Amino acid sequence: MTVSIEEIKRLRKLTGVGMTDAKKALTEAKGDFDKALEAMRIKGLAKADKKGEREAKEGLIGEYVHNGRIGVLVEVNSETDFVARTEDFKSFVHDIAMHIAASNPQFVSIENVDKKTLDKERDLIRKEIKKSGKPDKMIDRISEGKIKKYYTEVCLLEQLYIKNPDQTVGDYLKEIIAKLGENIVIRRFSRLELGEVQ
Amino acid sequence: MTVSIEEIKRLRKLTGVGMTDAKKALTEAKGDFDKALEAMRIKGLAKADKKGEREAKEGLIGEYVHNGRIGVLVEVNSETDFVARTEDFKSFVHDIAMHIAASNPQFVSIENVDKKTLDKERDLIRKEIKKSGKPDKMIDRISEGKIKKYYTEVCLLEQLYIKNPDQTVGDYLKEIIAKLGENIVIRRFSRLELGEVQ
Repeated sequence: MTVSIEEIKRLRKLTGVGMTDAKKALTEAKGDFDKALEAMRIKGLAKADKKGEREAKEGLIGEYVHNGRIGVLVEVNSETDFVARTEDFKSFVHDIAMHIAASNPQFVSIENVDKKTLDKERDLIRKEIKKSGKPDKMIDRISEGKIKKYYTEVCLLEQLYIKNPDQTVGDYLKEIIAKLGENIVIRRFSRLELGEVQ
Repeated sequence: MTVSIEEIKRLRKLTGVGMTDAKKALTEAKGDFDKALEAMRIKGLAKADKKGEREAKEGLIGEYVHNGRIGVLVEVNSETDFVARTEDFKSFVHDIAMHIAASNPQFVSIENVDKKTLDKERDLIRKEIKKSGKPDKMIDRISEGKIKKYYTEVCLLEQLYIKNPDQTVGDYLKEIIAKLGENIVIRRFSRLELGEVQ
């Protein structure tokens, strides 16, 4: 049973215990990180849980609330705090929050669309095409086009940017990366609308 | 197969179709609301999905961002828009958002703690007590006390209100209900912290 040095470091960082205790807990848990953490908690060695863990990421949490009825939070990461504090970065974050309020994306990027949602969408699209009477051999090609269109509707980076519909939000992101000379990532967002059914 | 009038109304509101079509779709789907909605979408009768549905609820989405590093959105519902627009209501919503930023609750109320989380916590607590060498017959009583303490740590309404630790957030809510003379509900919140692991 080998325990990776990364896991040991992570557990140490999270619990504040020494190298030996972290390694021992991981070995006893057969490498299962969550079990090791639980075991340490039971022994009173660690009060923390994973929620408290922090990655070394800079950036800003931005917000936009429209008329008290639609609220958005967005996390945009930069490599340094220096860049995060520039006016360019701040206004980018604000623009993105406003865009999310207006355009209601469901995911940040295509990679974030979960398999279940995609399968369901694909299935619906195929049934829609069949219903329309198109020949079977055309279904694959048409449905690929429709999936692409779906992405432009639900993925933030694929949506047309509301303040400049000549570009996508992804294009705007690339522009700001070039301008600020640092990798910038729109990591996640949260959008609440008054009275919406969850 | 009887289809409830409420479901018909809900489907109509969501899709914009007439009474007859909504009833037909529900009957064909044997009362399964989601299936009826999907079927209507396939037929091209409805583009909407459940996300777009709105309950008739008033209130405000409030926000608080601390130093660009912790952001909170909170939805507080009132019965009328009139009450939602009062200064008292607005300042209550702001107070609650600020409290959530500072105190990091995981749930709104005890009822919102999901069974899986509670079972895991209960299990950990029992193991902790066993480890401490307390006699078995005391475990139930001690663990009940610890569960109560857990609730005061993770449930917003059970937490001590940061601006006045003589009362819980739930007490503060009751106070504002009495003052404004309307039922007020803290429905949900979202809290993002820069760089946190999800």
